[in-house]
Amino acid sequence: MRLIFSALISLPLLLLAREGMWEPHQMPLLKKELRAAGFNKNVNSISDLFEFPMNAIVSIGGCSAAFISPNGLIATNYHCVEGSYLQYNSTKEDDLFATGFTAVNYEDEKPSAPGSRVYITTSSTEITDQVLAGTEEADDYASKAEIIEQNSKNIVSDCEKDSNIRCRVRSFFSGETYKLEVQTVIKDVRLVYAPSSSIGEYGGEIDNWMYPRHTGDFALLRAYVAPDGSSKEFDQANVPFNPETYLKISAKGVSDGEFVMVIGYPGSTNRLQTFAEINYDLTQGFARSIEFLKRGIELIEENTKGDEAATLKYRGLKSGYENYYKKIAGQFEGSKRFNLLDSEQMKWDEFMRHVEGNATPAEKNDLAALLDLIKEQQDRYLAERYYGNSSLISYVFRIYKNADERRKPNEERDSGYQERDQNRIKNSIRSAQYRFEAKIDKAIFLDRLQTYKAFDEDLRRPEFSRALKLDGSHEETLAVVDKIYSSEFTDPTKMLELFEKSFEEITASKDPLINFIESIYAESKEYEKQYDAERAERQKLRSTFIKLSKDYYKKINKPLYADANGTLRVTYGNVMGLELQDGIAYKPFTSLEGILEKHQGETPFDAPENLRTLIQEQDYGTYFAKDVGSVPVNFISDLDITNGNSGSATINKDFELVGLAFDGMIETIISDYKYIPEARTISVDSRYLLWNLEKVAEAKNILAEIDIVR
Amino acid sequence: MRLIFSALISLPLLLLAREGMWEPHQMPLLKKELRAAGFNKNVNSISDLFEFPMNAIVSIGGCSAAFISPNGLIATNYHCVEGSYLQYNSTKEDDLFATGFTAVNYEDEKPSAPGSRVYITTSSTEITDQVLAGTEEADDYASKAEIIEQNSKNIVSDCEKDSNIRCRVRSFFSGETYKLEVQTVIKDVRLVYAPSSSIGEYGGEIDNWMYPRHTGDFALLRAYVAPDGSSKEFDQANVPFNPETYLKISAKGVSDGEFVMVIGYPGSTNRLQTFAEINYDLTQGFARSIEFLKRGIELIEENTKGDEAATLKYRGLKSGYENYYKKIAGQFEGSKRFNLLDSEQMKWDEFMRHVEGNATPAEKNDLAALLDLIKEQQDRYLAERYYGNSSLISYVFRIYKNADERRKPNEERDSGYQERDQNRIKNSIRSAQYRFEAKIDKAIFLDRLQTYKAFDEDLRRPEFSRALKLDGSHEETLAVVDKIYSSEFTDPTKMLELFEKSFEEITASKDPLINFIESIYAESKEYEKQYDAERAERQKLRSTFIKLSKDYYKKINKPLYADANGTLRVTYGNVMGLELQDGIAYKPFTSLEGILEKHQGETPFDAPENLRTLIQEQDYGTYFAKDVGSVPVNFISDLDITNGNSGSATINKDFELVGLAFDGMIETIISDYKYIPEARTISVDSRYLLWNLEKVAEAKNILAEIDIVR
Repeated sequence: MRLIFSALISLPLLLLAREGMWEPHQMPLLKKELRAAGFNKNVNSISDLFEFPMNAIVSIGGCSAAFISPNGLIATNYHCVEGSYLQYNSTKEDDLFATGFTAVNYEDEKPSAPGSRVYITTSSTEITDQVLAGTEEADDYASKAEIIEQNSKNIVSDCEKDSNIRCRVRSFFSGETYKLEVQTVIKDVRLVYAPSSSIGEYGGEIDNWMYPRHTGDFALLRAYVAPDGSSKEFDQANVPFNPETYLKISAKGVSDGEFVMVIGYPGSTNRLQTFAEINYDLTQGFARSIEFLKRGIELIEENTKGDEAATLKYRGLKSGYENYYKKIAGQFEGSKRFNLLDSEQMKWDEFMRHVEGNATPAEKNDLAALLDLIKEQQDRYLAERYYGNSSLISYVFRIYKNADERRKPNEERDSGYQERDQNRIKNSIRSAQYRFEAKIDKAIFLDRLQTYKAFDEDLRRPEFSRALKLDGSHEETLAVVDKIYSSEFTDPTKMLELFEKSFEEITASKDPLINFIESIYAESKEYEKQYDAERAERQKLRSTFIKLSKDYYKKINKPLYADANGTLRVTYGNVMGLELQDGIAYKPFTSLEGILEKHQGETPFDAPENLRTLIQEQDYGTYFAKDVGSVPVNFISDLDITNGNSGSATINKDFELVGLAFDGMIETIISDYKYIPEARTISVDSRYLLWNLEKVAEAKNILAEIDIVR
Repeated sequence: MRLIFSALISLPLLLLAREGMWEPHQMPLLKKELRAAGFNKNVNSISDLFEFPMNAIVSIGGCSAAFISPNGLIATNYHCVEGSYLQYNSTKEDDLFATGFTAVNYEDEKPSAPGSRVYITTSSTEITDQVLAGTEEADDYASKAEIIEQNSKNIVSDCEKDSNIRCRVRSFFSGETYKLEVQTVIKDVRLVYAPSSSIGEYGGEIDNWMYPRHTGDFALLRAYVAPDGSSKEFDQANVPFNPETYLKISAKGVSDGEFVMVIGYPGSTNRLQTFAEINYDLTQGFARSIEFLKRGIELIEENTKGDEAATLKYRGLKSGYENYYKKIAGQFEGSKRFNLLDSEQMKWDEFMRHVEGNATPAEKNDLAALLDLIKEQQDRYLAERYYGNSSLISYVFRIYKNADERRKPNEERDSGYQERDQNRIKNSIRSAQYRFEAKIDKAIFLDRLQTYKAFDEDLRRPEFSRALKLDGSHEETLAVVDKIYSSEFTDPTKMLELFEKSFEEITASKDPLINFIESIYAESKEYEKQYDAERAERQKLRSTFIKLSKDYYKKINKPLYADANGTLRVTYGNVMGLELQDGIAYKPFTSLEGILEKHQGETPFDAPENLRTLIQEQDYGTYFAKDVGSVPVNFISDLDITNGNSGSATINKDFELVGLAFDGMIETIISDYKYIPEARTISVDSRYLLWNLEKVAEAKNILAEIDIVR
């Protein structure tokens, strides 16, 4: 609290809360705040999706990115290209992680794994009425949910005229508003540049979520299209895509206190929650997640020990678990450090005073019903986490259901199983080849089942429990699982063959795994339906909560933003250090010399020799920052980002790229859950990127192509 | 190196090296540097021992202190009063560590343990010629040493007319210069104020040598004399002493960058060393010391486990070991972090180039002989560390030798055994009652013997080895040690009785410990003599090294200071934060709120409830510092201090007390050995002291007595 207090004394202008992942059209509402933060351009210039700089920002699926040249060059994070670009193009002999990669011309650029995409948002239109059309007449929440799904599917299929565009119905404010997001899809994306992992992953897991940080978390891709400009999968004849606009890159960078924005695609947040949910998360939910993840990590470690191939296959899942574990443990710590429970309780009490005095009886009823529903669901969801932790069953279940759905006309199928989804499903099944091993999958499944078994009978799925004899002895369950895993479909090639088969062919099989799936198929569909109905009910009740929240925010004169949902968002703020501990200040910038300080000659602190020599010789080139006394490597700012923002361009008030956002700080990562003013976003500095291109990679062609502001 | 470099950019004026524990008379030499540091007063005002502020500074034996009122009130560190004041006055029922202590008037003030003293330096006169008189005619170094000792004793006994003064011959520059230090001795010192240990020791061992720090390391004493002004042991009739001058206390404190000085009694340094010594220390010596201390801590832990009384008795020795261990391990780390070996090698090479070009053949011979001698002694000294680690033997050996010496006329006795020393010896033997237990002493002795035994025969003392059968089996040695420890003098009361006996009475004893001492007495004296001779030889050779160093320093235009030797010294510099790690800055001040951050409700982080309430209520009184945003607790500056400086007044350019120096930082504590510009001194802020007196202790009488500058 003191830190905020002293900040108030010294920096009154900067203290306007930075909270918010805003939709571009909301920016004019924030004019005063943007001015206070140091933005002196026309606010309308950042409110239009079709205008620069918004239309230079793209999604590459899970990560954000930005065009940085008229020839489709794209900047994103190193960690966003590890799988589909580096791992895909690496062999034992030619390990791009070890060497890094710099294409010397277009021909040299490397293709990406199937399914790699660039998405450019071209419009976002409100369609709430169309999505909800007919729901008023529905008898129950299940039918309501069905109507909404059918409406959505119709809207999407009407929208997706060709495979060049992707259309998605996006829910804002928990279904209070729906929007149709239209995106251009580019299907040929190639690797142009990535540093070696000893730069791009410098600090590795140890420094993950940490600051001071020294990670060169940048990489360059290029979008390609057919010569006629249409979207086309990889083809030698394809040509570089010409985006409408692109970002210039600043060689001057930013300095302490300077205005910055991040534009990107934050994945999801749950900030608009009732106190009942927050209270549950902070007192139980986080702890249970930590338990689940910790055990997951242990299971992978125990079962892959000494098996190099298996270790590699499960490296992704494990590092995902570890990443999430570190994050959620940090959030748990942070919630205590920043006393979140107390402050949220206070906020809720205030909100409830507003409700008491202003809401209608029907609204109050809805709110009470929402709180009851939340309470009832919490235990059930806890058990559900331990249901079905078998990738084998999941893969084949999906094939089975897909075959079943394929029997219906396209528009009647469940979403996710339509024609447009077929390739994605196939690619996901194909991935079993490098991320699945039956022996390990089985061990994890069995362990999770043990925990699932311990839940009250009424929290478990009856058919699933029966099929696996969960009310019998461990040996009985083991026998069933052994039988399931004796299936021929533990072989990924067989899985792919199965994918091509008809539902009739599949059901004719005597395979024990197929038989098991048949035994739980109806129940599974029933649960899906039930959850859809519950979701619809919660959504309906929640929309009352949202309405009351909006009233309340209006009353206290604050704009409100929708939870992140993977759509294009803007957050603004300032480059800013941080004090978390009396007497110690995190400075806003780190520098090249910090890389040498951390260097140990061993992964993850094994800086390449040429990099070290350049630093020792203080060969800063034109990227020396006087205020930092060196070339800046990473910097922190009070921007409000979350997962999905990785690779987002950090831009200055002139919309020049000054960095790429890639991480948060573990001490304040609770802000991902509930915003706190101490939250900091870590970006890799544009000057470190340019310095690497010039001095380390000597990428003259790339430097010539990009527009550098000196 | 980068940190220095960036400091150069931003603070050119502050960069003049702060190295140096200067004698007051040297201050005029440093006028330019003092001005650059921000001192704008007359430089001569800090060059005279008889003038303010020098004569307000006192030694309390091992610690420094300062008069802060006309009635003899003295400010020093809390950790300097723990033994002789707090422990001495504490009982189970009235534990001053737990409660703290605030005298409400003179009568309320508490007496101190026998031997507690205040020393006020009244003169320091060069007497090199008198000390060395006659040494030219000596045949060998042993006689030379004897002459020096005899001369010194004569000078001291001529000087010490009465027990009101203490005279000491002090060696500067390894015996290149001798000075006679005359001090007024005050024998009645009482405890006036000490916070509870939960404030005065806040952070305890964990925070020892650490920053950011939040320790209230302050306490107040009062000097008393007889009504006629003469020095007298504790007596109800004694009256407060009126010092010639005293320091005012600043309630405004200092701010970042401000000029500060520390005046005090640094104990000893070894900065004027040859590279041969530094090289040995950094590659072997430090590691061997760490080994010795680590084992010492283990031995105490193993042998006091579960025995509360023994734990208490060895608490002092253990914490001494721990403190030293932490320090020397930090120095070892620091020597590597700051690449000391390389930089010292470079400095030495430069010095040797000067020697090559400028020294006479005789001087070069002396330097070569010095290097040979150092090399020859290193192994021997290593073994000697493990010789005689028995407190029992040491106590009784001292009594034995004292009785022997007492047979000679006073002036002929070895120094340390004269009439003037009798009380001190007795007090030290008395201390066995609360810091000695035969069983544990024996275990430590045996373990150290095991290591001693392993040294080459020619590195060990032959009589001692023979008496303890060190070349026999462990069992034989054990039997001898058992016999020694069967002595009746394992009882401290018996030791005190023995102290009163004559040499004849003692030698008539059949006690096995006395017998053992008799068997090694001659050898021990022989070794003393030999070491004296070696010291004299080294001193002689070293004086050539000093002379060459002085020439060299003159050539490079730098003043040179003598190694710390317990005499009054001045160091000056600036309040200054520190950056040791890229991206992280230690701020110059810590604040009250940091106490709450660290509070755990358990020692050593158990802040008293009233303190916490005051902080929570932001009850800063008149001690709020705008630049800190709170009441400052501790601060760091680039002052050059060492052991013995504890309790030293940190004063501003107006000679007002702004803090009390109490510690260094473990990361830069190597500066204690060789100065580095990154070194920082930690002081407790005067504002925290005043705030405690006013808000926590509510010590109106004390606040009324001191001169507070607001």
